[in-house]
Amino acid sequence: MAVLLDAGAHDFEARFSALLGAKRESAEDVDSAVRDIIAEVRSRGDEALCEFTRRFDRFEITPAQLRVTDAEIDAACAECSAETLEALGVARDRIESHHRRQLPQDERYTDALGVELGHRWTAVEAVGLYVPGGTAAYPSSVLMNAIPAKVAGVPRVVMVVPTPDGKLNPLVLAAARLAGVDEIYRVGGAQAVAALAYGTDTIKPVAKIVGPGNAWVAAAKRRVFGVVGIDMIAGPSEVVVVADGDANPEWVAADLLAQAEHDTAAQAILITDSPALAAAVEKAVAHQLAVLPRGNIAGASWAEHGAIILVPDLDAAVPLVDRLAPEHLEIETPDADALAAKIRNAGAIFLGSHTPEAIGDYVGGSNHVLPTARSARFSSVLSVLDFVKRTSILKCSPSSLATLGISAIRLAEAEGLQGHARSVSIRLENA
Amino acid sequence: MAVLLDAGAHDFEARFSALLGAKRESAEDVDSAVRDIIAEVRSRGDEALCEFTRRFDRFEITPAQLRVTDAEIDAACAECSAETLEALGVARDRIESHHRRQLPQDERYTDALGVELGHRWTAVEAVGLYVPGGTAAYPSSVLMNAIPAKVAGVPRVVMVVPTPDGKLNPLVLAAARLAGVDEIYRVGGAQAVAALAYGTDTIKPVAKIVGPGNAWVAAAKRRVFGVVGIDMIAGPSEVVVVADGDANPEWVAADLLAQAEHDTAAQAILITDSPALAAAVEKAVAHQLAVLPRGNIAGASWAEHGAIILVPDLDAAVPLVDRLAPEHLEIETPDADALAAKIRNAGAIFLGSHTPEAIGDYVGGSNHVLPTARSARFSSVLSVLDFVKRTSILKCSPSSLATLGISAIRLAEAEGLQGHARSVSIRLENA
Repeated sequence: MAVLLDAGAHDFEARFSALLGAKRESAEDVDSAVRDIIAEVRSRGDEALCEFTRRFDRFEITPAQLRVTDAEIDAACAECSAETLEALGVARDRIESHHRRQLPQDERYTDALGVELGHRWTAVEAVGLYVPGGTAAYPSSVLMNAIPAKVAGVPRVVMVVPTPDGKLNPLVLAAARLAGVDEIYRVGGAQAVAALAYGTDTIKPVAKIVGPGNAWVAAAKRRVFGVVGIDMIAGPSEVVVVADGDANPEWVAADLLAQAEHDTAAQAILITDSPALAAAVEKAVAHQLAVLPRGNIAGASWAEHGAIILVPDLDAAVPLVDRLAPEHLEIETPDADALAAKIRNAGAIFLGSHTPEAIGDYVGGSNHVLPTARSARFSSVLSVLDFVKRTSILKCSPSSLATLGISAIRLAEAEGLQGHARSVSIRLENA
Repeated sequence: MAVLLDAGAHDFEARFSALLGAKRESAEDVDSAVRDIIAEVRSRGDEALCEFTRRFDRFEITPAQLRVTDAEIDAACAECSAETLEALGVARDRIESHHRRQLPQDERYTDALGVELGHRWTAVEAVGLYVPGGTAAYPSSVLMNAIPAKVAGVPRVVMVVPTPDGKLNPLVLAAARLAGVDEIYRVGGAQAVAALAYGTDTIKPVAKIVGPGNAWVAAAKRRVFGVVGIDMIAGPSEVVVVADGDANPEWVAADLLAQAEHDTAAQAILITDSPALAAAVEKAVAHQLAVLPRGNIAGASWAEHGAIILVPDLDAAVPLVDRLAPEHLEIETPDADALAAKIRNAGAIFLGSHTPEAIGDYVGGSNHVLPTARSARFSSVLSVLDFVKRTSILKCSPSSLATLGISAIRLAEAEGLQGHARSVSIRLENA
């Protein structure tokens, strides 16, 4: 049973703060082990990769076997059902066409003084994509991470995926091929992150690493940040559903459980102004849980982290949503757009009763890689912008330099940087 | 004396790789001390801030004195010369008008199936700006970090600045006022980063922390990443000047030294196709060093990290620049634009002989916060985009859900997520 909070209750602020601050993941302290793994991969390269793979993924491997071959990808694709491949193709096409709209424009202009300013966007030269192995090996995530990189124009997209006991999910390979991934290596964990960041004989280094992973992968990404770029550190998934009394309680319950089934650490929260809906959803959740294949996981998530929050009116939901900064926000009200416009912090917003979040997970076209753990306060849905970077451009004419130079010289001198001042004044001497 | 590399020499690749890989900063290992400082600030708040300030900045302070008052800012502004304030105002206005052009647009469109897609940009709710104390307290950096945040619409910009022995640079306070900084606290180091990330009674937490700092600040930012957003981890500054035989060697030398005077760990590199220019620049550097007030610093930087690279033609400079991925790139050739178009990795490009990098440091209008230590391979010049975030929007109609639902259900089932499939199929049952 999820907790029930009433925004009108005297202890609401304390209980809501507790909900916000609750730790959903035990922070496994793997940092020093990860430091050692990275050092080993830096010093011993492929040999260390094979050794850690034997130890953690329990199979023998040589450096020559690290890369997944074209023949293996062919064989994997042949194993997948035509129906599933077709659905993956629908997802690929929709994700690609949506992300094509995100390509940013270069700019160049000349201001009133004659100074030319602008910027150029260029693609990152090589990107590493971490794909978790085992139960969390989701082909849809391969599409969501690799397609924006390819649309951005990244020439080299390298996927690493652990294969516990040597087993690989054929759909993950099929998705990688559909998305245009250039190289695939069967290695995971902190060792894979180290290889991508520093390179080995077999795996050339990349400039940026993206993709979710466990505590080891997260700690490794944090450590190599700076050597390479990284995306956000992914935490357990979460949804907030805002709904009024007209919402269908069975649909709302299904949406909450779709989130809860990910992981016992996932979080599903309903915010409503209708006590009747709250009660009906609670009942529907119990009923649906009984027949859900992953009911154990979803039930544990709902009991430990789920919540139903009663608010006096839906406007009162807005500051609560902003404090929760949910990865996914569903607004199941008739005026969903108006309410959405008031929200500052959310990774993705799903509008109206006919947009279950699962559509966005697969075939909506928008990206399902979203900021978790309240990081929507400062970070964004994954996009083409994550795979390009902006170079600033400046060009002075002799006359604009003469005009601006005086102020530059004064500021440089005020900062005690005479060399800076001199690099300007030397050009004005003969002007 | 800087090293001289000839791209035609048999050992060039080895020597260039060594230059690329050379460590310019001794990586002070402060990580465990920083972990303890963060833990102290989380548990004891303001009291810990005051204690660390006493220890590291050597003056007594109470929580009530942490915040810099309006009267103190008034007094600081009164101390600054009218000329310098005027120059700061020129810089402020130019930075602001350039950054206003960076405000991103929301988007919303309906695709052929009737699915509405789009995104909204919202400002980060609160930003912390770290400003180093002591010799590296640069008012220009305050402008460069705070103005983009304010242009983005960040309602609360909080500055922290250490004041060793209680002393504060009045120009830093004047710049903060000009830039619209909302709160200023006289605290620095890892303790300031911890306060910004987790909050204390006096300093409310922010959602993102930007700004340069020493090894302690960098380690603290790395640790709090995820709790808050952070910008890049700044390293020592660097410039690459690409010039041909027509460049003025005195100007090129002045530009190299403007970079070198920052720090003995700074790096200045000249790439040229002209042995005559190389020799003339080397001579001019020696000559100018003798009269430069910070000549000791610049001389050490030039001797330890400087380089002159001879290439057979300027196109051969392009792959070298991309591997160096310099923070600043000056192209002092007549066709600077054409050469710039071939470069993938650079933080900022300064075109032509009349654009010394120092103009960009102060009054060009573009931002001087740039990716260092080869991180231009994956990161960008600071901009308004660093202070906003993108929320993705999705809205299905009953009919578009019915069309797309089949593929979503297939993929959810292929991933073993029946709850996801159910959240779609339950909506199609009565359709």
